[in-house]
Order: sequence, then structure tokens, then C-alpha cells
Amino acid sequence: MSRLDAFSRGEVPPPAAPGDPIERVDTPALIVELDAFEANLAAMAAFAARHGVHLTPHFKAHKTPAIAKRQKALGAAGFCVQKVSEAAPLVAAGLTPILVTNELVGDAKIELLCALAARAPMSVCADNATNIAALAAAAAARGVTLAVLVEVDAGSGRCGVAPGQPAADLATLVAAQSHLRFGGIQAYHGKAQHVREVLYRKTMIDQAVVAVRATTAALASAGLACPRVAGGGTGSFFLECASGVYTEIQPGSYALFDRDYSDNEPVTEPGVPQFQNALFVLATVMSATRPEHAVCDAGLKSMSFESGMPRVRGRPGIQYRGPSDEHGVLALLDGAKVAVGDRLHLIPGHVDPTVNLHDWIVATRSGRVEEVWPVVARGMVF
Amino acid sequence: MSRLDAFSRGEVPPPAAPGDPIERVDTPALIVELDAFEANLAAMAAFAARHGVHLTPHFKAHKTPAIAKRQKALGAAGFCVQKVSEAAPLVAAGLTPILVTNELVGDAKIELLCALAARAPMSVCADNATNIAALAAAAAARGVTLAVLVEVDAGSGRCGVAPGQPAADLATLVAAQSHLRFGGIQAYHGKAQHVREVLYRKTMIDQAVVAVRATTAALASAGLACPRVAGGGTGSFFLECASGVYTEIQPGSYALFDRDYSDNEPVTEPGVPQFQNALFVLATVMSATRPEHAVCDAGLKSMSFESGMPRVRGRPGIQYRGPSDEHGVLALLDGAKVAVGDRLHLIPGHVDPTVNLHDWIVATRSGRVEEVWPVVARGMVF
Repeated sequence: MSRLDAFSRGEVPPPAAPGDPIERVDTPALIVELDAFEANLAAMAAFAARHGVHLTPHFKAHKTPAIAKRQKALGAAGFCVQKVSEAAPLVAAGLTPILVTNELVGDAKIELLCALAARAPMSVCADNATNIAALAAAAAARGVTLAVLVEVDAGSGRCGVAPGQPAADLATLVAAQSHLRFGGIQAYHGKAQHVREVLYRKTMIDQAVVAVRATTAALASAGLACPRVAGGGTGSFFLECASGVYTEIQPGSYALFDRDYSDNEPVTEPGVPQFQNALFVLATVMSATRPEHAVCDAGLKSMSFESGMPRVRGRPGIQYRGPSDEHGVLALLDGAKVAVGDRLHLIPGHVDPTVNLHDWIVATRSGRVEEVWPVVARGMVF
Repeated sequence: MSRLDAFSRGEVPPPAAPGDPIERVDTPALIVELDAFEANLAAMAAFAARHGVHLTPHFKAHKTPAIAKRQKALGAAGFCVQKVSEAAPLVAAGLTPILVTNELVGDAKIELLCALAARAPMSVCADNATNIAALAAAAAARGVTLAVLVEVDAGSGRCGVAPGQPAADLATLVAAQSHLRFGGIQAYHGKAQHVREVLYRKTMIDQAVVAVRATTAALASAGLACPRVAGGGTGSFFLECASGVYTEIQPGSYALFDRDYSDNEPVTEPGVPQFQNALFVLATVMSATRPEHAVCDAGLKSMSFESGMPRVRGRPGIQYRGPSDEHGVLALLDGAKVAVGDRLHLIPGHVDPTVNLHDWIVATRSGRVEEVWPVVARGMVF
């Protein structure tokens, strides 16, 4: 039995094979429905093209080169990663150029970045002078050139230097290094993405635009051109596109679209794409010993829960109430019934950390497995 | 550069090598401090031996055969798993017998169980007649014998049949199948484990003991011997040991011991072991742009958070305030200071789903890497 042999060797074999009916997929498994997924990819690509803005999808959301390849075929200008290790399989697959939308601290990470820069164009973010010095020294030692984007705090209060003069000062420092190139500014407003009301989200991106304008003005005074203004996620990309100051959007979740994003108030402006849930955790009911109560086989090791519970698709009255490590407790409301062996499509709360739990994505169409994709960068947190 | 090559091939290489000083471990990395870990293992083994109760540590907590091997060397009577796939690497390593402390539903899982039962003694739980029929048919078709424990709801309200006669009826059904053997009862009270107050925890295990007694009495009336009464986790094992009715305890977290367990009220009864936090996520400060605020490189993809925030060891005033996918925001209180590049030992809230995020455990002693263990069953959720 080859599946047993794989587990015995410490490998996680795919839960299904192309051609299988979905009923044969072992659970819990990560499912992508291709019709919805392809519509999501096409809608974002068309929107970015129509606005003349580069689309550099964020690889951290799906960690799957098979998906990145489809994004590139639809016109992606490159890819974002959050961790330098994630860039390696992309570079190996020719899916470049790459921007690390994050600060890299520590010799191991900066060495990896420079080794990648010898193979493909690599950009990275920085928000302090010590880090810029470390990048400059490593790039010079290795004889490569790195593009460095100054990360500006666009309102999220996480990483990023203050906009305006402090950002321009760092850009000037970057430009003075022989093996660094000033690549532009990274101004992503992460906190805005999941704000439910569109109008409130808009005020937050307005704030990011003010930060960008203050920074580009200071850069101009310092005599520096700003080749790239990057930011914009699945909850806000249409606002960055409309701003006239962003040259690039970096959404990731739009391709798979989770429950939390679909709980955002929909954008009613004409032309702004609506996305569909394309990602599911397929689970099996494994115990149902009491009325109004059942248990499925997908818990904390199959989904992340910090954005709330998954929604059960197409089974009214079945609510996922809470996880334990390997279980999900289901409440059966309004007379809903399940039987042991029933299979449920759970719409996970949050794409990125959910996908990172799985080794395989089972891509289905019309109830049949069409492809099985390895989540190649799963676990690449370095 | 071999690390780059590994990432490029889609592998996650170890973040350190034996002999490295801890300063060279790439982050975020999972660290086990061997002195504390070994003391935890020894204390639980000695306690179980003193009480004449079998210790079958739960493999789901650490998923690491290198740890299971040490547990067996200290007298473990076998191992528990929660998913049948987890059993495969244990059987391959000769770390048996194995009890799946869970219902297995679906052909793929039951076939895997039977294939394993041809190689090693396998037990599994059941809480309904349909599942028992499926187990019996598969075991007969494969020509193997499975031991089936009837899972009783000991108070957690998750899986498990009602105690007493309903449980005895299922046991009678098991005993009537030619290729099944009635293996005893599984009566684990999961909800009791993290109840802070010892006295309240005790009332919950008292409830489990009542459920066990009702079931063994009904079994006796049905003429069935009960070879095994199993349950007991890291928060309650001393209570099951004291009950006189449990023959076996199944703790998992005690070996690595997380923040949530160390927030339980300590047991003051003499002879009950105290455990130490032996598991850490090593993280690096990657941004510190404002006073009272910094960011480290470990977030939702490096730790689980449903049991609360990690604690920062040995750095008073530094609080981990909240994660995003790849970041952790730190609050600096009472004048605490950090610098970019500082490395922090985070004590994660919950062992099991945290370990499942990592491919490697870096085992250290006195600030040096002694061994690097593959988390062989990581991602084995099937």
C-alpha cells in the first residue's frame, strides 16, 4: 500500500489523485474549486490592467508555484513574498522578479537573499539604518545588487519608518550604498484590509495615500526618484488603484478568498471585482452521539481560527462551534441533521495560515479532482 | 549553498546543525531545552510506575519519533495517536503498540488501520454501531484483528457514547465480531485539562470516574471483562492515577509543557510532579521604529494562538501583544528596551498545534545545539 509506505517514510502523500471523484478524497483536505478560483484570478488581473497598475500577487497567501504560474500567465508583474525562503522555489521556477515585503534581519536570511540575487532580480524592504548597512555589506561581499524599498508605516503601526522626511533619509542612505539601489516605497496598510465598512476602509487608505504623498515629496526634495509605490491587499486594492499614487498592488487572498474577506461589506462601485470563496477544508463527520451535536475531523491542525470559525457551505443549520486539535464540534440547529460519514465543505476564516498547514491542494471541477498541487513553500517561515 | 538548494527543491532544511551555538539558529525555530525536557519525561514515567498505571504518551503532542523513543526507553507501555496516519512512522520505528484515541471514519482511514494492524498491534476507538460494522468488515476482509475500545463521553461533550448501558451495548457488539476484540474503554476528559483550579479539575475527573464505574458495572452485567480503562492528560493524570479505576494515562503535553498548562494552578500534593516549560519558539526582533513598540519574526505560521499569547522568557516588560501571519507585535512596558536583531525565547500557548507548524525541533543544552529532530508526523492529519 503506497500511501502507508509514504506515511511510514515520514512523507505526507496527496489525499487524492487526478480523476478521482471528490467522494474519494481523504479528509481533512484542502480543496480549491477551479471555476471560482479562475474567475478570481481573471477578475483581479483585468482590474489591474485596466488601471495601469502592476499586479504582484502575494505568494505568502498560497505558497503554491502552480498558482503563481497561472497568475504570471495572466500578467502578474512579479511576486511578493514575506519570507526570503519562500522566494527560493519561485526563483527555481522562473517566477520572478521578487520583492520581499519585509525586513530581513540576521546573517542567514541576508545571505540567502544575496544568493538569490545572483540568480534573479530581488528587492527587499528596510525600515532602519542598521539593517541597510547589513544589506549593503552582504551585497558588496557577494558582488550582487539589491533593490531596497523603504517601508513606510502607512497606518498599521507594525513595521515601517514614519512617512515623509524619515523615510526620505533612509532612501538617501540606501542610494549612497554601492551595491544597493533605492527601489521605491512599500506602503501597505494591513489593518485596513478586514475593516467591514467600505467607507471606513476608504478613510484608512486615504491615510496611507497621505503618507505616500508626504514621502514622495520628501524624496523629490532630496533629489531622489521613486520608481515604485507598492501596497494594497485584497480588501483595499481598488482604493490604491484609484489613488493615482500607487504603481503596484500586492493582493494575495483574492485568489482563494476566505470567510473573513467575504464578511467584508461588498464594494458596489461598478467595475470593482467581486470574488468568490474558492478554498475549502473538506471534513468528515466522525461522531454524532446526540441530537443537535456532531463532530468532524478538522480542527486546529487543519485550519486557523484567529479570524473566526469556518462556515459550513450548503448545509443550513450546521454551525462549526469550536475546534480542538483534531476535532471540530458542530451544532445542529433548526432541525438540521448529519450522519457519521457525511462530508462537509468548510470555508476557512483565513487563507494564509490555513494553507500553510497543508502539504497538498486538491483542485476540483464539477465534483472531480482535476489536479493536485504541492504547497511547495509550506513551512518556509525563515 | 545547500540551504538555498533545499528551499529551491521545496524542502525545509533544518535551521541549525548539532554543535552550533544557539546564536546561529535561523528563526523562527522550535527549540527544546533538553534539561527541562528530560526532567519532564523522567518525572511522569516515575509517577506512573509508582502508581502501577500504564503510561501511553500521546504522540499527537510532539509528532516526533526521537521523543517517542526516549519515552519508550523510560518505560512507556505504548503510544496514543489521534490520526491513523500518525501511527505509520511509529510502527516503522518499532514504537508500538498503538491506540488510535479516536473514531476512524471513511474507507481510506480504515484500510490504513488494517494495513498497520498486519504489522503491529493496533487499537482504535468507536462510539457507534455503524462504525463498528465498518471496522469489522474491513478487518475480516484483510484478515487482521483489531482491538476496539468503546469511547465513553466522560464529561467533555465531544465524541463518545453515553456511559453505562449504551457503552456496554457497543462493547457487546464489538465482542460479537469475528475480527474485532473488545479492548476496553476510552474515557478521556479533555475539558478538564486546562481548568485552572485543582479542586474544580478534581470534580470533573470525579465525574469521569462515575462514568467509568457505571460502564464497568454494565460491562460486568453483560459478562464482559474490561481489559483497559484509558484517559488522563497533562492537567489531570494524577487524578486518574488516584482514582483506582484507570489502568492507563495518556498525557502528551507534559514532555514539552506550554504556557497554558503552566498557567494552571500548581498541584501541591506531595509526589505529584511539577513540569517545566521545555518548548520555545526562538524569534528575532526585525523592526523597532518607535519607543514602546517592536516587531518579531514569529506569527501565526510559527505558533498557535487559540490558547492565548506566548510569554517572553527572561525579558521583563516585553509583551507579545498580537500576531499577524509572519509577525508578532511586541509592547515594551516599564522602560523595557529591545534592539533589532535581539533574539527572544517565546513560550507558546499550546504545544500540539505549534509543533505541527514546524519541520524541525532544535534540541539544545547550555546554549548549544545538541540534536536536531525531524517532526516526522507533521502534517499527518489523515
